[in-house]
Amino acid sequence: MNYKFSDKVSGLQASAIREILKFTSDPEVISFAAGNPAPEAFPKEKVAEISAEIFNEDPILALQYSVTEGYTPLRNLLKEQMEKKGCFNPETDDLIITSGAQQSNEFACKVLCNEGDTLITEAPSFIGSLNAFRSYNVNLKGIELEEGGMNISKLEQALKESEGQKLIYVIPNFQNPTGDTMSLEKRKAVYELACKYNAVILEDNPYGDLRFDGEDVCSIKSMDKEGRVIYSGSFSKILAPGLRVGYACAPKEIIQKMVICKQVADVHTTIWSQAVCYKFMQQCDMDEHFASLREVYKRKCNLMLENIEKHFSKKINYTRPQGGLFIWCNLPEGSDMLQFCTKAVKDYKIAVVPGTAFMINETDNTTSFRLNFSTPTDEQIVKGIEILGRMTKEMFD
Amino acid sequence: MNYKFSDKVSGLQASAIREILKFTSDPEVISFAAGNPAPEAFPKEKVAEISAEIFNEDPILALQYSVTEGYTPLRNLLKEQMEKKGCFNPETDDLIITSGAQQSNEFACKVLCNEGDTLITEAPSFIGSLNAFRSYNVNLKGIELEEGGMNISKLEQALKESEGQKLIYVIPNFQNPTGDTMSLEKRKAVYELACKYNAVILEDNPYGDLRFDGEDVCSIKSMDKEGRVIYSGSFSKILAPGLRVGYACAPKEIIQKMVICKQVADVHTTIWSQAVCYKFMQQCDMDEHFASLREVYKRKCNLMLENIEKHFSKKINYTRPQGGLFIWCNLPEGSDMLQFCTKAVKDYKIAVVPGTAFMINETDNTTSFRLNFSTPTDEQIVKGIEILGRMTKEMFD
Repeated sequence: MNYKFSDKVSGLQASAIREILKFTSDPEVISFAAGNPAPEAFPKEKVAEISAEIFNEDPILALQYSVTEGYTPLRNLLKEQMEKKGCFNPETDDLIITSGAQQSNEFACKVLCNEGDTLITEAPSFIGSLNAFRSYNVNLKGIELEEGGMNISKLEQALKESEGQKLIYVIPNFQNPTGDTMSLEKRKAVYELACKYNAVILEDNPYGDLRFDGEDVCSIKSMDKEGRVIYSGSFSKILAPGLRVGYACAPKEIIQKMVICKQVADVHTTIWSQAVCYKFMQQCDMDEHFASLREVYKRKCNLMLENIEKHFSKKINYTRPQGGLFIWCNLPEGSDMLQFCTKAVKDYKIAVVPGTAFMINETDNTTSFRLNFSTPTDEQIVKGIEILGRMTKEMFD
Repeated sequence: MNYKFSDKVSGLQASAIREILKFTSDPEVISFAAGNPAPEAFPKEKVAEISAEIFNEDPILALQYSVTEGYTPLRNLLKEQMEKKGCFNPETDDLIITSGAQQSNEFACKVLCNEGDTLITEAPSFIGSLNAFRSYNVNLKGIELEEGGMNISKLEQALKESEGQKLIYVIPNFQNPTGDTMSLEKRKAVYELACKYNAVILEDNPYGDLRFDGEDVCSIKSMDKEGRVIYSGSFSKILAPGLRVGYACAPKEIIQKMVICKQVADVHTTIWSQAVCYKFMQQCDMDEHFASLREVYKRKCNLMLENIEKHFSKKINYTRPQGGLFIWCNLPEGSDMLQFCTKAVKDYKIAVVPGTAFMINETDNTTSFRLNFSTPTDEQIVKGIEILGRMTKEMFD
């Protein structure tokens, strides 16, 4: 039979990243295309130990249905931690455990946006979130990124023009894909505009704890006096993404609606995963853990930057992230970026993600591509960047 | 601030079952309200052993991001098993792992239905699925259940009247909430009507392996020649619901769209859970495992039925399920069922689920309530049914 798919999904394509990742199943391909955290940073012995503990202490807990809001000890610990950071007001806020920040972001859109409503995002932005928003048939409006974040006057213009419940999606720390961090001034300006135009901000912060350079910048959630910010956190980059545990912290009314979305989406997040996160936070010195993660990420990022410096044509610009997983490279204006990326993977077996994947409209032009430094080994970074460098010199010098 | 929630969620209420379950946190309450599988049937030692094995063999597999479609060895094993049952055609079908059947059912609706489209369900039906459908703002059309399943002429009438991609949701085995099983004749008739009116059938079968009486009836999926059936399966009732693993088996085109929904919902299901399901199926004699589950469920169901027979007023009708988790009781016509259920939990500390929870429209009248026999202990069944019985005699004899 011929299926008539819903308007929501009929135009949706599988993520371009996932398509490129298919090439990476070839073991000879060096992949800078993933968004995976560094596997050598996974505390695998500790997780194995905790898992055994869970089954020793209370196996039924891990196996039976549980509450939709999330495992209570984990929720309480996260609330406490968020309160210490000035991001949780026990009077007005609540917190839900989700199956990764991806789910929190999807719920924020489902809860607040009708089909056709405008949702404002940074341009470029994370394809996973963009596709989640697209799957609710919202109208995405991208605001150009400049030094230190969104162009504020363009944001104001977009807010003026949009109707319904206005929602602004931002990744302020080590943004995906650019690696850049939003300045304090821009954060304040975004929050003030949200107040002025009665908008809600979805602040996605999966990489915030992976800062290896510079000083922390206050989160937008910590500035929130009016209940306008949904904060989206994750264990994917600080513990392990295979667990699928994230959380959202937001005004109670919004969390109540997210709980209903959670109930109809998957009842609750895998209990074993939630118990692993809880016990890990409780038993480990998290400052020490973060320090060891940052060391791994800093070393790998610097290794990639040094090799880019050494091998790339001087006509290529790139970001110097202070944390996170990504470097964003810009080919000279007018160059055929897609051809470059395709040639890299087909002829030289080096995978990168073409910048078009992160654009708001497929037709938006870009000469950028994204490099990931956390997944490849040191040897792969050295070898792969050298090859890409040779390509840039051949094509652009 | 005042939030403007989307039309999709603004009318949605938290599930009435979950509200009643809040009473059950009082340890003195005997709960027949849950839909939980019997905890004594969880193979907890085996799962602990498998979990240790996973961390011994390949911890990175369990911790890193994985493919959206699901863990390949598990998918392959399920495809093989479904093919043996005549429910998987390798030429035309595909299979996706989801975070429980709840998620498969949500995706089916998201993929096929626009807001305002009619979705046809049995009446009464499972509240979790009904709420998932409601969260996409579809127009639910309930078809009265009679002996052996839906009233077929009313189904035909509804199909005639509905527009857009027609979707029919059924739970053919040991239905939730009624416990009844759809007859082979009705299954054939539902499938024929789907062909005649170009509809898709969503066949939800979480309890199918829990048959403890009577003979298996062919699944609708096994009759499908035209690619009209989405089959929704689950590990929740045959292994453990806390794992959150289910699957959907359907024509490739539909699964492709479900994969996109999965990518934007939670990237993939917790890998540890998927590996546990795979290894359990691979290492255990599943026929033996099912036999031991059925023994537990049969004993508990019979214990509840015997005690209903002994203590309930003869004016109460009830179903005699051949499997699954539930018995459906009908109070005499005209009686105040909600008052009965409220009195039971408040005055006698016995929780049951009022039938209204499973109605398509809140205003639909019913004198029924649902009893679960899998979660309570034997002692609780004996004591709780005796008390409920006394109530029925006081109120109706």
